Amino acid sequence: MQIQRTYVCDAASNTEPEILVRGWVHKIHDLGKITFVHLRDKTGIIQLVFTEGKPEHLRLEMSIEAKGKKVENPKAPGGLEIAVEKMSILGKAYYDKLPFEINSGKMKAALETQLDHRTITLRMPKVRAIFKVQEEITDAFRTYLTGLRFSEIHTPKIISSSTEGGSEVFTVNYFEKRAFLTQSPQFYKQMTVGAGFERVFEIGHAYRAELHNTWRHLNEYVSLDIEMGFIKDETDLMDLEEGFLKFLFEQLRRNCSHELEMYGIELPVITKIPRMTLSYAHEVLLDKFGKKSPAGNIDAEGEVLLSKYVKEKYDSDFVFLTGYPVAKRPMYTMPSEEDPTLTKSFDLIYKGLEITTGGQRIHDYEMLRENITKFGMNPDDFGFYLESFRYGMPPHGGLAIGLERLTMKILDLENIRQSTLYPRDMNRIEP
Amino acid sequence: MQIQRTYVCDAASNTEPEILVRGWVHKIHDLGKITFVHLRDKTGIIQLVFTEGKPEHLRLEMSIEAKGKKVENPKAPGGLEIAVEKMSILGKAYYDKLPFEINSGKMKAALETQLDHRTITLRMPKVRAIFKVQEEITDAFRTYLTGLRFSEIHTPKIISSSTEGGSEVFTVNYFEKRAFLTQSPQFYKQMTVGAGFERVFEIGHAYRAELHNTWRHLNEYVSLDIEMGFIKDETDLMDLEEGFLKFLFEQLRRNCSHELEMYGIELPVITKIPRMTLSYAHEVLLDKFGKKSPAGNIDAEGEVLLSKYVKEKYDSDFVFLTGYPVAKRPMYTMPSEEDPTLTKSFDLIYKGLEITTGGQRIHDYEMLRENITKFGMNPDDFGFYLESFRYGMPPHGGLAIGLERLTMKILDLENIRQSTLYPRDMNRIEP
Repeated sequence: MQIQRTYVCDAASNTEPEILVRGWVHKIHDLGKITFVHLRDKTGIIQLVFTEGKPEHLRLEMSIEAKGKKVENPKAPGGLEIAVEKMSILGKAYYDKLPFEINSGKMKAALETQLDHRTITLRMPKVRAIFKVQEEITDAFRTYLTGLRFSEIHTPKIISSSTEGGSEVFTVNYFEKRAFLTQSPQFYKQMTVGAGFERVFEIGHAYRAELHNTWRHLNEYVSLDIEMGFIKDETDLMDLEEGFLKFLFEQLRRNCSHELEMYGIELPVITKIPRMTLSYAHEVLLDKFGKKSPAGNIDAEGEVLLSKYVKEKYDSDFVFLTGYPVAKRPMYTMPSEEDPTLTKSFDLIYKGLEITTGGQRIHDYEMLRENITKFGMNPDDFGFYLESFRYGMPPHGGLAIGLERLTMKILDLENIRQSTLYPRDMNRIEP
Repeated sequence: MQIQRTYVCDAASNTEPEILVRGWVHKIHDLGKITFVHLRDKTGIIQLVFTEGKPEHLRLEMSIEAKGKKVENPKAPGGLEIAVEKMSILGKAYYDKLPFEINSGKMKAALETQLDHRTITLRMPKVRAIFKVQEEITDAFRTYLTGLRFSEIHTPKIISSSTEGGSEVFTVNYFEKRAFLTQSPQFYKQMTVGAGFERVFEIGHAYRAELHNTWRHLNEYVSLDIEMGFIKDETDLMDLEEGFLKFLFEQLRRNCSHELEMYGIELPVITKIPRMTLSYAHEVLLDKFGKKSPAGNIDAEGEVLLSKYVKEKYDSDFVFLTGYPVAKRPMYTMPSEEDPTLTKSFDLIYKGLEITTGGQRIHDYEMLRENITKFGMNPDDFGFYLESFRYGMPPHGGLAIGLERLTMKILDLENIRQSTLYPRDMNRIEP
């Protein structure tokens, strides 16, 4: 009878006399009479020992299957090795030379080269670790929200109008029509809240045809979107995001200790995320750093400096900025009652990078209509969206977190492309 | 102090003297001195009693908040009602007339009208139920697969080449280039398996520019994709799908009994799904129904007749069809060893509709190269995909399930648009 395959992470606890492993050839140490091979599977690396020299035709990165007895060896990774009795090659190698070394632990190739050979790069345990962390993020997001009665939804990415997002939108040739790729599920998540779902979230792609090619921009990214009905105001949303981040960090400390360690990350326990108004932040930047900010916003340099200040003063990696002016937020943003030039919206800055924009939305049909007009747009261009506000839309709001940005910042990666399996930017649509 | 909001489904178990509920006005019975109002929230319907006549300005579908004492009343839905002490309108109504009745339990409007007013349709408890079931499907899919060490991935939907799918593909204007919307994550999920992830799944959008406008076609749909490395052959994949469906049906029986009941559905316990070759199915169709089939496939009518036969003979709603000919499957499909004109692939038919195509893939670089040539295509057009097969690609295979098709068939819906929040078809990109 064929014995069951054992994953490397389960090898130590496996009590069978003989075990069978599968994976890729990570390293070959040919010592003449004896050969050590490191086999890498999804869960780890284990040492195989061949006592009759190097197996014929064995090359790095072939996929193989090996069967043998487990032997304790304190010098081997994980403290054990397999004395191989039988080995077969499952997937052959057809290369002359690997594009770069993947078993040295150090990546020497430039990022663009790494991305060109993405299926090779992803084999490096340290690169693989990024996506283990990313998977925990989406898992924590989903678990946290479903526990609060949020429903997961899937909304269309092909849309009829680019009214929400201006010019930075990709066009699609949709039969005889021109359509667009959505920049966010904003309208649809609001509509679905109003349609009785009350609390929704979506983990889906969003598209930005931005002419930026920087370390923090992607043209296709995964947006963690939330929309919540029957809120008091935008503080409910900041509380929700704070709760999620606490929950996430606990889960990461529990499930990704190894991955975090590879990046030298010690995740802090989040207690309370400081909240400050944008105008206060402007003062701080001017006062502490002599830094002037653009009206109604802070720029990339300001985000970095402010995070530095918040870290020193409050020992927090995060800061909520509130009180953005009406003129700098979309037309659906709820204005503040105290100061109608300001909105009930916020950004979340994490280690010098904006990872969230959120806020309360206007829920009253007449008010939204008027606001669209105030913004110099025509309410008639917002057909089905505006229409859905006629039928008892409750007070609501939401937020969105860029999955790749959050991943990047948790692991202190330098470039957002590192936290995307197959990134899309202005120059790259392959692989 | 403001009391906490109680969801309708928790009202019975709530022990506070006074409760606060929020939701939409589902029904109004104005009896002069006394008015009964049904309030609908995400979780159910509860009766509110106003003893001083109809509250001013109250209209159907407004969103409101009501506070009062809980009173048992066997005649009320759920056996209890709230004697309202305070009510406030949270979201106003701005309509002259609802587009159709949504509290009668019967939908009288045509499907196209329902879809035009989707945020109204979705308020009907029976329509809402579809998406509760759909959410359980994705949840079960994810839970089942992560339990088997599958990793959830997100692959790009904007791709550089339409080589996989022929002409039925949407084009995107991507900066100065022409790009395409992916028809499936096929290439990327295979590549990610080979990159060391071994077992992956994705819940994501897929796009088909098909010129069909039928009850079973969508141009944008959610694909439940699986790809699995180190398989023996395609039977591993059929076993996996069978395991998932068993798991799903158990979860639905547990969590969606109310929703299934609304549609009069009693889900069978799945034991073993029959597997038959396509050529045997052709014989059955000819023999039992005098039905001729197209070469190497069965058509929509054949699917329905075959399901009828399988139901009678094996008491199964499902049937796997195997042994599809090489000429009818994509170039990456693994040919059979016994008969090289056939492939190691399968379809799954559920209640007369194909919901899955799957199979083992060719994993050897040279064999894949040759097969691409045999199919009359140029291997050089498959750059990064083919390239990823040079580095020890293990035996692997996968399958995809159409989420909307599965939802539709579980609930015996007539049209696939019913199981999509905001469907996209040849004529519809709104709302």
